[in-house]
Amino acid sequence: MNSAVDLPLGLADLSFAASGDALVRRTVLPSGVRILSEQVPGARSATLGYWVAVGSRDETDAVPATEAHPLIPASFGSTHFLEHLLFKGTPTRTALDIAISFDSVGGEHNAMTAKEYTCYYAKVQDRDLPIAVEVIADMLTSSVLDRSEFENERGVILEELSMAEDDPADVANERFFSAVLGDHPLGRPIGGSPQTIRDATRDAVFEHYRANYRPQDLVITAAGAVDHDLLVSGVVHALEAAGWDLGVEAAPVDRRATAPAAIDRGAAVVTVQRPIEQANILIGVPGIVATDDRRTAMSVLNSVLGGGMSSRLFQEVREKRGLAYAVYSFSGAYSDAGVFGLYAGCAPAKATQVTELMLGELRRLADGGVTPDELRRAVGQLSGGAALALEDSDTRMSRLGRAEISVGEFSDLDESLRRLHLVTAEDVRDLAADLAGRQVSISAVGSVTDDMFAGLVS
Amino acid sequence: MNSAVDLPLGLADLSFAASGDALVRRTVLPSGVRILSEQVPGARSATLGYWVAVGSRDETDAVPATEAHPLIPASFGSTHFLEHLLFKGTPTRTALDIAISFDSVGGEHNAMTAKEYTCYYAKVQDRDLPIAVEVIADMLTSSVLDRSEFENERGVILEELSMAEDDPADVANERFFSAVLGDHPLGRPIGGSPQTIRDATRDAVFEHYRANYRPQDLVITAAGAVDHDLLVSGVVHALEAAGWDLGVEAAPVDRRATAPAAIDRGAAVVTVQRPIEQANILIGVPGIVATDDRRTAMSVLNSVLGGGMSSRLFQEVREKRGLAYAVYSFSGAYSDAGVFGLYAGCAPAKATQVTELMLGELRRLADGGVTPDELRRAVGQLSGGAALALEDSDTRMSRLGRAEISVGEFSDLDESLRRLHLVTAEDVRDLAADLAGRQVSISAVGSVTDDMFAGLVS
Repeated sequence: MNSAVDLPLGLADLSFAASGDALVRRTVLPSGVRILSEQVPGARSATLGYWVAVGSRDETDAVPATEAHPLIPASFGSTHFLEHLLFKGTPTRTALDIAISFDSVGGEHNAMTAKEYTCYYAKVQDRDLPIAVEVIADMLTSSVLDRSEFENERGVILEELSMAEDDPADVANERFFSAVLGDHPLGRPIGGSPQTIRDATRDAVFEHYRANYRPQDLVITAAGAVDHDLLVSGVVHALEAAGWDLGVEAAPVDRRATAPAAIDRGAAVVTVQRPIEQANILIGVPGIVATDDRRTAMSVLNSVLGGGMSSRLFQEVREKRGLAYAVYSFSGAYSDAGVFGLYAGCAPAKATQVTELMLGELRRLADGGVTPDELRRAVGQLSGGAALALEDSDTRMSRLGRAEISVGEFSDLDESLRRLHLVTAEDVRDLAADLAGRQVSISAVGSVTDDMFAGLVS
Repeated sequence: MNSAVDLPLGLADLSFAASGDALVRRTVLPSGVRILSEQVPGARSATLGYWVAVGSRDETDAVPATEAHPLIPASFGSTHFLEHLLFKGTPTRTALDIAISFDSVGGEHNAMTAKEYTCYYAKVQDRDLPIAVEVIADMLTSSVLDRSEFENERGVILEELSMAEDDPADVANERFFSAVLGDHPLGRPIGGSPQTIRDATRDAVFEHYRANYRPQDLVITAAGAVDHDLLVSGVVHALEAAGWDLGVEAAPVDRRATAPAAIDRGAAVVTVQRPIEQANILIGVPGIVATDDRRTAMSVLNSVLGGGMSSRLFQEVREKRGLAYAVYSFSGAYSDAGVFGLYAGCAPAKATQVTELMLGELRRLADGGVTPDELRRAVGQLSGGAALALEDSDTRMSRLGRAEISVGEFSDLDESLRRLHLVTAEDVRDLAADLAGRQVSISAVGSVTDDMFAGLVS
């Protein structure tokens, strides 16, 4: 899937796309480190990301590492735990030093653990990019995972899980993934559970770190006020200064399957009873994978069905009937599975009605398709939104990373717009029909019962 | 307070500041409409805002309109209700038409009701700015507030309130304001209560609309790819086309008091018992007003105490002890009152300890002040953060509006940085001592009791 492995090893420096005024360049070091940048003329700041294609889906409690699954097993939630620990210190920087490096220049810095990757990023003024390159390299390569810091951070993560547990929409979302995707690893929550976090050991997390944070796993992307050659030399210098041996040749690692996995639904209906005001309802089906040719049609479908104030869900559920404040649709695409979902928060007494309305809109799209007006508006919304989003170097940095890790190819804005204009009403209706024909799962949190939804799914 | 009223009536066109490369211009029409813009060279998009200086604090249930309080009374939550209704249609545009205007070009459009103002805004590509100017003008001037749309939207707003009620941090925040500010109008929640929303009538909200959305109330700000002269002519054309008579001379309205109000604390401790995982704790005191000369020192204080990962609260509560995931401080400044607060979400069993730690850090700042290193870092954080924030036209648009409505003067980045560099360690310590000497209130939501906090406040 990932074109990088097909390149001859060596310093492959490939300028592969121009995105508007911006120049995209990609370098693969002999050690397998990949560096991508998008220089935006006139930019005064840059966003930098260090990516490793390890996420919660790669964790396992039971299966030992094998040829087919070369990851070191880590208990559920360990990838996210590790992400926290990389802010806690190296031999040359304390946690406070790391925090000061970014705070003292007004930069934003943070990290995110996802189901298929982990990313450490910073947004800084151009003059501060070298220090960001250096500090994140130090975190990535040389974190000590001190035992007492590990215990402190266990407490922090347990509080993070508690916060999510107190957010009914978060809870509904976690149950949604396991209801739709069943036992597939993408169905698990990213953060693990309080029990797996309490059981996690420093040494297992350290082993996970050592096994999976290697040159051939690392992707570095930057966008904005960035000079590619300076970035490459800065990264090489920082990684070597931090002790990595970049002299060992290795091919970039691509962990992901390319074919969609078979999905066995976890549950038709899952409810969590809570004495709260709203019913938080998620309705969904297995979606498409990240490389699916229909992903642009999916964007159009999502825009028409639940992507804005003019969308069908918003109009039918909120504008015409006043049944919800928040109502929308969403699509999540991963390497070998995906989800497509509809969300609404409403009064429990209206839960059945709102669920019927949302399911009805999905079926109506499958049966009747989209109108020419809707198709034109969706194309306008998506192309305009993409143009606005690309004003932020954050968006460009993320797009580069996801292209390298998840999709395996980079599309500049012009190419994306070209694909968008090729989508037909028939493409959208066909995709809607495909989705509407899949097994539906419903996840709801609030003063709800299974009975409210039992008759609506088969 | 507001310099506008001192200008001779007539077309006062004042280019009053250059912010970096950007040119700020301000025009006051004879009718009292104020138009401010900040043209950013090279920008391809613009953010536009229509502001009216009416917020939840201006609502009243009991007091009739008087000379001293010229607003038409509206039941609590009516300002926010009205904001929703302005998206529901005019004689020439349905709610769907309004939504399509923005969705079809990929623009972001929304509105916010605050305690002292309401703002309707849109972010669009440069070519779409004229339509944004026209559509928002139509919404502001000509909404019909149809009775059946009113009933639908009542349902939407009740769901919005339910969603907030299900968010423990939101609930703690609302109780916090009334605990710290007591009966002051700024202590009330912006959205009203389910009861006041159920009681609201279309005619009262319509009267509120007619009385307070007038030329002399209106401030329009835009930033990014905007030509000031074209903006002014576009606004004039759109307001007149929508039926406003701009030929009647009027001075811009300034509703706000300039002197700090006397504050009587509402409660020392207020708790809401809920069977959830975390205790959501807010500790606070009355803060400073928006025009206070110490507002830059307040920014520095906030940065040092709880403004980032290197801040004292983050280090003491999270890094060293692992007691919380989210912990920070904040300052809210309004025309005649303000709040200063500390937040943490933690295990209920740790609520007393975390509260003591946070109060201890405020007192330590009052007693010992900040170190030279902390002061230098805070200045770096605030200046770097300001530079990054100004890359977004949203930030510039908001800054113009708040300067006009809340502060009464506009400071460009250079002026802000000059003031920042003048702040001394003594200024920060003096302000901390002032704040630490004020009556403390605590608001907590979760498995908590008043006893957990009773000994900590006097």
